[in-house]
Amino acid sequence: MEGYNFSTEILVRFAETDAQGIAHHASFVVWLEVARVAYLSEHAGGYLAIQAQGVEALTTSVEVRYHRAAHFDDRLRIWTRCVDVRGARFRYEYAVERGLTDGTVELIAAGSTAHAIVDATTRRPTRVPASFAEAVARAEVPAPARRPA
Amino acid sequence: MEGYNFSTEILVRFAETDAQGIAHHASFVVWLEVARVAYLSEHAGGYLAIQAQGVEALTTSVEVRYHRAAHFDDRLRIWTRCVDVRGARFRYEYAVERGLTDGTVELIAAGSTAHAIVDATTRRPTRVPASFAEAVARAEVPAPARRPA
Amino acid sequence: MEGYNFSTEILVRFAETDAQGIAHHASFVVWLEVARVAYLSEHAGGYLAIQAQGVEALTTSVEVRYHRAAHFDDRLRIWTRCVDVRGARFRYEYAVERGLTDGTVELIAAGSTAHAIVDATTRRPTRVPASFAEAVARAEVPAPARRPA
Amino acid sequence: MEGYNFSTEILVRFAETDAQGIAHHASFVVWLEVARVAYLSEHAGGYLAIQAQGVEALTTSVEVRYHRAAHFDDRLRIWTRCVDVRGARFRYEYAVERGLTDGTVELIAAGSTAHAIVDATTRRPTRVPASFAEAVARAEVPAPARRPA
Repeated sequence: MEGYNFSTEILVRFAETDAQGIAHHASFVVWLEVARVAYLSEHAGGYLAIQAQGVEALTTSVEVRYHRAAHFDDRLRIWTRCVDVRGARFRYEYAVERGLTDGTVELIAAGSTAHAIVDATTRRPTRVPASFAEAVARAEVPAPARRPA
Repeated sequence: MEGYNFSTEILVRFAETDAQGIAHHASFVVWLEVARVAYLSEHAGGYLAIQAQGVEALTTSVEVRYHRAAHFDDRLRIWTRCVDVRGARFRYEYAVERGLTDGTVELIAAGSTAHAIVDATTRRPTRVPASFAEAVARAEVPAPARRPA
Repeated sequence: MEGYNFSTEILVRFAETDAQGIAHHASFVVWLEVARVAYLSEHAGGYLAIQAQGVEALTTSVEVRYHRAAHFDDRLRIWTRCVDVRGARFRYEYAVERGLTDGTVELIAAGSTAHAIVDATTRRPTRVPASFAEAVARAEVPAPARRPA
Repeated sequence: MEGYNFSTEILVRFAETDAQGIAHHASFVVWLEVARVAYLSEHAGGYLAIQAQGVEALTTSVEVRYHRAAHFDDRLRIWTRCVDVRGARFRYEYAVERGLTDGTVELIAAGSTAHAIVDATTRRPTRVPASFAEAVARAEVPAPARRPA
């Protein structure tokens, strides 16, 4: 997806559906976290590497816009990017899409989360670890524009 | 809370906590739904009464801002109001607060959700049932200003 | 219910249902925990009082037998008793019932969980705190047989 | 694992942990379902193929024995077999294991679930579809004993 360099997939679990026959809207909030963990695993040595520096990342806001329902056993691709890393704070943006049998995709949901780094002991805000900020900077280099052949 | 006429309480479950020792941020999304269900039960005959009219309410967006961590066994009060009922759409706003032992309260989180009414069979948008719109209008009458005695 | 002195109620949340239109079977496992927490709150000063003694209760097994489906907004009563307190171990037994409009009840599920007390620091098994064992002994005194007047 | 022909993997999500710092015991019940869905996908055309026959599989009991704690980001392998297919009923058995860095594995949990097939319309028990029973019979052929070369 335009503007995103990273994605991960999830398969909708039956336990994540509700009596409307669709994936419950709170399930998406869990999937965004799964996507963040995959992103960190790919780019920054994993969340455990961040914890190893004596800090934790808190979630300070979540926002999801639901465009289409997701269903049991749907395979969803979650595009994820980390943006606005500054001071103790950073944000993620997400686009959740579903592949169709004709090879096209449709947007299921989009959202963002905001986070703050706190010292694991004092629980006070502290700067984003440099290694994380650098990993994000490398990960989020814009892909070169695609040119006609 | 100023501007809210309705609230309900939840008790944080152990299953709703995470390895940071606090209530997981996705739990709040479930609690907001619990609050909506309680609101409907109080004011509009319950969600089952809405379904009985052949319609369903979908959630089209969720947004939560986390101000303080909640912990296992915390008793939280969720202030809830329904706003912007128009056409097929309506929104809820929420404030989640925790009582302190000195009788004051502190804000834990705030948020909003947007919803659309769809026909249960065709899944196409349809007007909010009149009975629901009227129930909300009655429920959301501003409380009279408190005057000094 | 015969043989039980304690019960608590839960209201089935929409998020706890699944695409079969019923409460998901994993939800019951969470409800049994809610019932244990309520039991401890009633009888033993709460789970936090147990933690204050430097120990934690781990769950070592769970077993649930589902007799009837539960649905969104069902009010369920969870009968709970603590049994077999010995050494580092104890068990709970449960019966989940639903009241009918004619005043009778029907059994929805039954189950049991087993637990072990471990030292919070060493994570090694340690005796059930005496205060807990005594609280259970008091709570589980058989109710006197009901005699005809 | 001896006696099992099928396994699938899950990665412990942060949302699945609790304030004891470990995977919450109810998470395992969800993972067993994930494993059943993967088994059906591999062997019987998927759960949606079963539903297409106008029947649904209800869960009639769940039992899990927890041997070791699982933690955030643990990769767990869930060995799964379907047993005792007869009439309207069948069971699954499971072993959840974690690989260690030295190449060995350790048992985290074991369990079983029982299920009943019901007609999707009447909700009354009906025979396990022949295609499912045959798929299970093929899947559960004992692996030939491994002989020394």
